[in-house]
Amino acid sequence: MTVTLHVCITCRAGQTLGDGEATPGARLHAAIVKAGAPTGVDVVSVECLSACNQGCSVALSAPGRWSYVYGRLSEVDAPAILAGAAAYAAAADGIVPWRRRPEIFRKQSLARIPPIAALPEAAE
Amino acid sequence: MTVTLHVCITCRAGQTLGDGEATPGARLHAAIVKAGAPTGVDVVSVECLSACNQGCSVALSAPGRWSYVYGRLSEVDAPAILAGAAAYAAAADGIVPWRRRPEIFRKQSLARIPPIAALPEAAE
Repeated sequence: MTVTLHVCITCRAGQTLGDGEATPGARLHAAIVKAGAPTGVDVVSVECLSACNQGCSVALSAPGRWSYVYGRLSEVDAPAILAGAAAYAAAADGIVPWRRRPEIFRKQSLARIPPIAALPEAAE
Repeated sequence: MTVTLHVCITCRAGQTLGDGEATPGARLHAAIVKAGAPTGVDVVSVECLSACNQGCSVALSAPGRWSYVYGRLSEVDAPAILAGAAAYAAAADGIVPWRRRPEIFRKQSLARIPPIAALPEAAE
């Protein structure tokens, strides 16, 4: 299944930036794009994941799966984020065994949200 | 649209509990159920929203809408949580104007996640 990795590009991660200086969120997004998304992972930038006190942050989601938000990230974490996203995409149900998750996913979870019920009205 | 309010019932909110003592999460869930879900809000308990450092926590979600996670809550917040959930359910697109959100939703956001794309394969 193709999953979505949302990357907050507006995050300042508590830093004061100079004129025209890229935000830490934009730098994280650039590092992820540069590293290259693995098969089954669609990288999408987003303006604010409302986790500003715990930025930089990313979110993993896909239809019918638990969604996950991770924080306290920076551009050096791009490879681990992509490895974790690839494992999420490859897991049949999106639930990656705990020990196979990158350390940042084990220790820097901000939240997870159960699969969103496909209500009858949503199928209209 | 019917939306889902997930309430983490396993959250200890940093407290040490005695034998048989209800968790703060279970007490929050009970307070929400006792207050009564407003029209269009389905209250669902969940074991862990992975926001343990910021508990108690709840999540609001619905098909095609942004999902929201809020934290640092307790049972006294039940009425405000339900008012916020009702506003989310009533908003045509799930986006409640900032000033109409309860203060706990404005100040205690843990994260939000963009609507999950309905990929073609998900419609199979």
